[in-house]
Amino acid sequence: MSEATAVKCDDSRINMKLIGPFIDATVNVLKTMAGINPTPQSPHVKTTHEAYGDITAIIGMAGDNVKGSFAVSFTEPCILKIMSNMLGEKIESLTGDVSDGVGEITNIITGGAKAQLAEEGYVIGMAIPTVISGKSHNVEHVTDQPVIVVPFETESGPFFIEVSLIV
Amino acid sequence: MSEATAVKCDDSRINMKLIGPFIDATVNVLKTMAGINPTPQSPHVKTTHEAYGDITAIIGMAGDNVKGSFAVSFTEPCILKIMSNMLGEKIESLTGDVSDGVGEITNIITGGAKAQLAEEGYVIGMAIPTVISGKSHNVEHVTDQPVIVVPFETESGPFFIEVSLIV
Repeated sequence: MSEATAVKCDDSRINMKLIGPFIDATVNVLKTMAGINPTPQSPHVKTTHEAYGDITAIIGMAGDNVKGSFAVSFTEPCILKIMSNMLGEKIESLTGDVSDGVGEITNIITGGAKAQLAEEGYVIGMAIPTVISGKSHNVEHVTDQPVIVVPFETESGPFFIEVSLIV
Repeated sequence: MSEATAVKCDDSRINMKLIGPFIDATVNVLKTMAGINPTPQSPHVKTTHEAYGDITAIIGMAGDNVKGSFAVSFTEPCILKIMSNMLGEKIESLTGDVSDGVGEITNIITGGAKAQLAEEGYVIGMAIPTVISGKSHNVEHVTDQPVIVVPFETESGPFFIEVSLIV
């Protein structure tokens, strides 16, 4: 069963056919790569420009019938736990290795979502990820479309994904 | 004559056929939209993850034979001058309007470069731009390829473009 089918969403502005593949891929990738089991919360439309985490990866998407951007934003304790699990050693600060890891995780999540979206007829080309770190950075997707945020809970604190797709 | 042909570059890692269109488009867009005349400096390979400016727009690119990302990073005095010129009123701080403006400028520069690259046989799809603001944010393009930085001088201080393209 898809992870996304268990998520409750009443907001008619949110197209779960587009968002669901990113929720599924996020859970699957973190389970497989880091042995953690994140729990997706209800998606909502983003209302401010504030990023939620301390380190954010962004990847652009462009295709014949869809374009947009996908971001994953981790709080520091959460990404340190994920990276420690992935690398098999205790990671205690946001080093360059953590940035590379966040970029790689984002690449793989997007690749997973891309495969699932292709089955729905949306063909996406992926750009290369960019990673932003620094306390209190703001991230704004420049689009008239609603940006959808999905929070995830983990034992080491929350993280968030943001999806902005124009179809 | 192309703006980029006037720029000196001895570094064999830098493919001016790919970088030149972004230099040309940057100068043309800022001349046309904001009435300022930026002077491109020598391109170089980025060696740190530090962003150079106070506000940065990033746009992903994905196509059949090329993918990557393009970033424009403005120092605060420089973008305030540009936005004041564009909007016809004095802009004194990095508001949401400035973020939207930086995203729009980046969109238009990328569109210009895209047209020029198409003549070279590189067909690029553009994602939507993302704007990051906040003092001391780091921007890292997650790629094994060199990221090329081109600084520009203006009367109101410098700004920088970064191009990372995999062909």
